[in-house]
Amino acid sequence: MKSYELTGGFGIDKLKLAERPVPQPGPGQVLVEMKAWSLNFRDLLVVRGLYYPKMKFPALTLSDGAGLVVAVGAGVTRIAVGQRVAGAFMQSWTEGEPDLQKNRSALGAEIPGLSAEYALLDQAGTVVVPEYLSYEEAATLPCAAVTAWHAMVTKGHITSSDTVLVQGTGGVSIFALQFAKMHGAKVIATSSSNDKLARVTAMGADHVINYKTTPEWGVEARKLSGGRGVDHVIEVGGEGTLAQSIAAVRTGGRISVIGVLSGFGGSGFNLLPVLLNSLAVQGIFVGSRAMFEDMNRAMSNHKMRPVIDRVFPFDDYPAALTHMQSGAHFGKVVLKV
Amino acid sequence: MKSYELTGGFGIDKLKLAERPVPQPGPGQVLVEMKAWSLNFRDLLVVRGLYYPKMKFPALTLSDGAGLVVAVGAGVTRIAVGQRVAGAFMQSWTEGEPDLQKNRSALGAEIPGLSAEYALLDQAGTVVVPEYLSYEEAATLPCAAVTAWHAMVTKGHITSSDTVLVQGTGGVSIFALQFAKMHGAKVIATSSSNDKLARVTAMGADHVINYKTTPEWGVEARKLSGGRGVDHVIEVGGEGTLAQSIAAVRTGGRISVIGVLSGFGGSGFNLLPVLLNSLAVQGIFVGSRAMFEDMNRAMSNHKMRPVIDRVFPFDDYPAALTHMQSGAHFGKVVLKV
Amino acid sequence: MKSYELTGGFGIDKLKLAERPVPQPGPGQVLVEMKAWSLNFRDLLVVRGLYYPKMKFPALTLSDGAGLVVAVGAGVTRIAVGQRVAGAFMQSWTEGEPDLQKNRSALGAEIPGLSAEYALLDQAGTVVVPEYLSYEEAATLPCAAVTAWHAMVTKGHITSSDTVLVQGTGGVSIFALQFAKMHGAKVIATSSSNDKLARVTAMGADHVINYKTTPEWGVEARKLSGGRGVDHVIEVGGEGTLAQSIAAVRTGGRISVIGVLSGFGGSGFNLLPVLLNSLAVQGIFVGSRAMFEDMNRAMSNHKMRPVIDRVFPFDDYPAALTHMQSGAHFGKVVLKV
Amino acid sequence: MKSYELTGGFGIDKLKLAERPVPQPGPGQVLVEMKAWSLNFRDLLVVRGLYYPKMKFPALTLSDGAGLVVAVGAGVTRIAVGQRVAGAFMQSWTEGEPDLQKNRSALGAEIPGLSAEYALLDQAGTVVVPEYLSYEEAATLPCAAVTAWHAMVTKGHITSSDTVLVQGTGGVSIFALQFAKMHGAKVIATSSSNDKLARVTAMGADHVINYKTTPEWGVEARKLSGGRGVDHVIEVGGEGTLAQSIAAVRTGGRISVIGVLSGFGGSGFNLLPVLLNSLAVQGIFVGSRAMFEDMNRAMSNHKMRPVIDRVFPFDDYPAALTHMQSGAHFGKVVLKV
Repeated sequence: MKSYELTGGFGIDKLKLAERPVPQPGPGQVLVEMKAWSLNFRDLLVVRGLYYPKMKFPALTLSDGAGLVVAVGAGVTRIAVGQRVAGAFMQSWTEGEPDLQKNRSALGAEIPGLSAEYALLDQAGTVVVPEYLSYEEAATLPCAAVTAWHAMVTKGHITSSDTVLVQGTGGVSIFALQFAKMHGAKVIATSSSNDKLARVTAMGADHVINYKTTPEWGVEARKLSGGRGVDHVIEVGGEGTLAQSIAAVRTGGRISVIGVLSGFGGSGFNLLPVLLNSLAVQGIFVGSRAMFEDMNRAMSNHKMRPVIDRVFPFDDYPAALTHMQSGAHFGKVVLKV
Repeated sequence: MKSYELTGGFGIDKLKLAERPVPQPGPGQVLVEMKAWSLNFRDLLVVRGLYYPKMKFPALTLSDGAGLVVAVGAGVTRIAVGQRVAGAFMQSWTEGEPDLQKNRSALGAEIPGLSAEYALLDQAGTVVVPEYLSYEEAATLPCAAVTAWHAMVTKGHITSSDTVLVQGTGGVSIFALQFAKMHGAKVIATSSSNDKLARVTAMGADHVINYKTTPEWGVEARKLSGGRGVDHVIEVGGEGTLAQSIAAVRTGGRISVIGVLSGFGGSGFNLLPVLLNSLAVQGIFVGSRAMFEDMNRAMSNHKMRPVIDRVFPFDDYPAALTHMQSGAHFGKVVLKV
Repeated sequence: MKSYELTGGFGIDKLKLAERPVPQPGPGQVLVEMKAWSLNFRDLLVVRGLYYPKMKFPALTLSDGAGLVVAVGAGVTRIAVGQRVAGAFMQSWTEGEPDLQKNRSALGAEIPGLSAEYALLDQAGTVVVPEYLSYEEAATLPCAAVTAWHAMVTKGHITSSDTVLVQGTGGVSIFALQFAKMHGAKVIATSSSNDKLARVTAMGADHVINYKTTPEWGVEARKLSGGRGVDHVIEVGGEGTLAQSIAAVRTGGRISVIGVLSGFGGSGFNLLPVLLNSLAVQGIFVGSRAMFEDMNRAMSNHKMRPVIDRVFPFDDYPAALTHMQSGAHFGKVVLKV
Repeated sequence: MKSYELTGGFGIDKLKLAERPVPQPGPGQVLVEMKAWSLNFRDLLVVRGLYYPKMKFPALTLSDGAGLVVAVGAGVTRIAVGQRVAGAFMQSWTEGEPDLQKNRSALGAEIPGLSAEYALLDQAGTVVVPEYLSYEEAATLPCAAVTAWHAMVTKGHITSSDTVLVQGTGGVSIFALQFAKMHGAKVIATSSSNDKLARVTAMGADHVINYKTTPEWGVEARKLSGGRGVDHVIEVGGEGTLAQSIAAVRTGGRISVIGVLSGFGGSGFNLLPVLLNSLAVQGIFVGSRAMFEDMNRAMSNHKMRPVIDRVFPFDDYPAALTHMQSGAHFGKVVLKV
C-alpha cells in the first residue's frame, strides 16, 4: 500500500511517499481502508520535530482520519467489517479521566499515525461516524471537534446564558463556534481578517473583533458582554493572547487552553488575576471516545456540517501542511484518497 | 474607641493608633466588640500600597477578626446580641459563585477593615464561630482557613485516595494540611527549614521536602507519589514555584492558586504542560459564608485547632506585620485586645 | 388597595375581594405596584388547603407576579424605584443550595402571597425582569420557568446530545420544552390531546405521544430514542406516571420530580429499577434568584416568549383557578390588573 | 477443576459440586486461580431465581472473588502472570458512566460467575488488589466495598462536614461506615441488635439507634443531627425503610439506594417530600474499575481492613448462603479454598 513517511529527519520536506505491506489485524484490532484525513497544528509540530523529538524514522504521521472497516482481528466485538469509522485520537482513552498512559496512546507521535492507505486501530479506539457525513467531513472530527466539545460541553457545561469567546478561525475555534450556537450561547469571535469575520458572522457569531485593528480585544470583548466579562474563552494562542483572554473573562470564568499557536516559550503570564478573579484555567488535550460519541449524537441531531477549508489529494500532504502553516485557512484542511 | 489607622500614605510605619467614635449599626448591620484579629499576607500588601492603591486615608485595615455582638440594627434577624462571631472576608459573598461585586466587598481594602475596638458587619456577612474555639483561634479563620477549605473541599473534592502538596508553613498551607488529613488524604509538605518540616510531620504530613536542599522538589514530590504525580497542589508562591508545581502534579491534576508570595510580575509560566497534561489551574480567592459555615461544622466535629504562631497585643499591630513579613512564622500571626 | 383574600376557610369559593391599606417598605424591603400575576398548581393546592393547612385567615395567596417598584425601604441598594421586577419564589433563596429556611420563605403559603394591588418584597428576593417581556409574560417566570431551568440546566446540565421527555402541556412542561430546544436537545412530549400535541410539535418537539391512545408511553419513548432510553424526564405527575417515566429513561438517566399532579398519596413506586438502572431521581422545588437571573439572561439572548394560555382580569382570580384546575390549559394562566 | 454449579433449577439446594475442565484464556483474557470469594445479597437472589430468571443451567454463580493470575491470553498487556487480582463486578465497566451493556457484563448472572477453582476474566475487568490484604479480604471488595465507595465518595462527595446514616450491619453498610470515618464525617448507624450497635460504636460510629426499640429512627436521626437532618442516607432496605430515610435526611440531602433487602414490590413511597425537600434519590449499582482502583489507593493509604463475619470452606458455599440469608452476619461472609 501507499504511505506517507517521515524519513531521515524532521521537516515538511522529509515527508516521502513509500510502499508498505498492508498490515494484518491482531487480537482486538481493526483494519481500516482509509478514505480521508484531516490536518491539525499538532501534525505540523510533529513533522517539524517540535512535538515528539524521540520519533523513530521512518514514521507514519497524522492523528485524524476516517475510512471503511475491511477486516477485524480475534476478539473484536464492538466493530464490524463494513462500518464507516474514525480513529479516536487517543487509542486507549475510552472514558473517564485523562492519564499519562492514555496520552501516550495518541495517534501520530509515540504511536504510528494514519498516513497510509490502510491503518490498524484498537477496537476500543474506533468510533463509528455519523451516516450523514462524508468521509472528508468525518475525518475532521477526532482532534479538533472533540477538543471543542470537551472544552465547551463536557468541562465547560455551556448553557444558553453563556457568552463564549473564540479566537481565530482554525479548526477548533470554528467547531467551538458551532457547538456554542448549538447550545444557545452568545459568541464573540476574533480574527485579523475582516473577510473571515464576515464568514463567522454568517455562521452565527453575535459579535466579531478584528484583533489587528483592536489590539485590546479582550477589553473590547468585556464591553460587548455588557461589562460583566465573557464566561468562557477558547484559548488557542498561548503566550501572545493570554493577557487579553484574562482581560475578557468574567470573575469566576473559564479559560480553556487548547493551543499554543503563538509559541510556547515562557509567557508573560501573570498569576495574580487568576487568583483575584477566581479564574479556572483548564488544559484541554482532545478527549475521550465517550465524548466523541456524545458529540456524534448531537451532530446527528442537528445535521451539523464541519467546515472544510480545502481538500487536497493524499499525494499532496506536504502542500496541505504548508497551506495550514500559512494560517490562511478557515476551518479544516483535509486530504482524500 | 481605639483604632489603628493607615494615615498619610502607605507603609507599616504609617499605621497609627487613633481615637474614633464607636459606630452605630444601621439597618441590617451588626456591631461587634472586637476581641482578636489575625494577619494575612494580603494585609501586608494593603499596608504597603501593593493591593489597593486607591485607598483613602485614614483607612482601617485587617480583614480577619472575631468578637462579641453588642448591638444590632433594624431588620437584623440572623444574628443576635451576645453571639460570638467573625466577619466573612467578603461581606456580600454569602453563597454561590464569586463575582466582581462580591470581590469588592472584601474587608480591609475597598471596604474598611476591622482594626478598631468596635466594627460594623453586614448581618449577611457575619458568621457565628464554633464554641470550642477561643477568640484568638476564631480570628484566624475568615481568610486563610476558608481559602484552604474552598481549595481542598469545595473545589478540590478531596478524598482519601488523593495526595496533596502544600507549600511552606504559612496560614493557608497549615490549614490545608489539617483539612487534607481530616479527609484521609496523603500530604507532602515543603519548607526551607528542617525544624518546620519536623513540625508538619508531627501534624501528620506523610512526606516532607526541604526545597532549599532539593530545588527540584516538584520532581521529588512526583517520585514520592509513586511516579503518578500528586493530585492537587496548593500553590502559594506564584512566579517562583509554579514550574515545580507543574512538575509535581499528575495528568489531569489540579493546582489551586491561592498566593503570589514570591512575586506577581510576569512569571515564566509555560502553558504547554497545562494543555498536554490536562491541568486545572484554579484561582481561589477566599470563599463564601456558606463555605465558612460548612468548615465550622467540620472543625467542630473534629475539635480541630488552628495553629497560632504568636499572639501580639493589638497595640503592636505594626510589629506583628513585620514579624509576618519576615516569613519566620508557622501558622497564623494573631492580635488580641 | 384592592386585594384577594382567602377568608374563613379553604376553597376557591373562599377567595374574596377586600380592601387593605397599601403597605410601607421597612428596612431592606421593596414596594411593588403589581401589574400581573400567574397561577401555579401549587396555588390551587394552597387555596384548597392541601398545601399549608396551618394558614391563618385572611390570607394573601399567589407566589408569582410582576410589577413596578414604587418605593424602597432603608438600606435598599440592589433595587431602585422605577424598575420592572418580579418576586423570587423563595424570598431568601438568593444563591447556593436549598435549605429548610429558604423553603419557608416561599411566597403565598407560610409567607403572604402577592394577591393585592401592592406587595412588599425583600430586596434580596426581587428580580429585575427582561425589558422585552410584558408584565403578563414576566409574571409567568418565578415558579414555572425557574423550576424548568433548574431541572434542565442547573441540575440537568442539558446538552445538545440529550433527549428529554416532557409530560403534558402545563407551565413547567412548556418552559422545559423551550429550554431544551434552546440548548439543542431532542424533545419527546406527551399529552392526551392531539390538538395540544400539534401545538408542541409546532414549538419544536421532535416526537409526540398521546398517552391516552398509548398508555405504555414510556416504552414508546424508549423506542423513539433508538432503544437507548431518554436522558431526562420532567416528571409532573407523580403516582400515576412514574412507572412509565422509569420505563422511558436510560441507564444512568435522570428523573426530575417537579410535580405531583396525579396525586401524592403512596405511589406504587418500585425502587428496584432505580437501583439497577442507576437512576437519579431529583426533587426540584423551584430555584434560587441566581438561577432566575441566569435564565433571564438566556431568555433575553433568545427573546424567548413564555406561552400564555389565557389572561383573566385580577377580579376573576377564582375563575382563573377553576380554569387551571380543569387541565384544559396550554402554558400559563395569567391575571392582570 | 472443582466448581459449584446451580443445576436443574433455582434454590440453595440446587447448588452442587461438579468437575469441569480448567478453561483456557482467549484473546484479552486472564486465567485466575481462585483463592477466596465473598457473598452478596445479590447472590442469594440469583440462586433463588429472583434476580435473573432466564439463567441457563448448569450455571456458575458468585460475582466476588480474588486469586492469582496463572495465565494470560493473546494481547493481554494490563495484567501479568503472578499478580494477585480480583474481578471487577462488571467486566466491561472500566470508567465513565454506567450503561445497559456494562450492566449486562456483571459476573454471576447473565455472565458466568466465579464459583470454581479457576476463572476467566477480561483483562479490562481485572483489578490488582492491595498487597496488605489477604485473599479473603480482597475477595470482599468487588461488590460491597465498591458500592459503598461509589455512593459515599464518587457520587456523594463526602466531606468532614457531613453526617451520614448507615442502615444495618451488612457488607455495604460496614464499608460505608469505614469510608465515612476515613473522610472525617459523622456517622449514625442503625441495627436491631444492641450487640451489633456496640460493635459499630467501637468502629467509630458517632451515634447508634436500635430501630426495633425506636421505630421512628429517621426522626431520631434528625434530632441527633441537631435538627438539620443528615446529609446522606445509605438506603439498603427499600420498601420498609424509605419513609424513615426521608424523615432523616435534610433539605437538599441525598439518599443512595443500594439495596432492597426488605422487598422490592411496590413500596409506599411518597414522592411529595422528594419534591418539597429537594432530595436526590440516587440508585447505586456497584461501580467502575476506576472507582475500584481509587478505593484501593485510599485503603492502602489507611491500611483499612474489611470486616469479615465468617470464613467458610468453598465446599460449604450453600451453608454460607444460608448464614447470610439469616441476617445474623456483621460484615462480609467469605469462602476460601
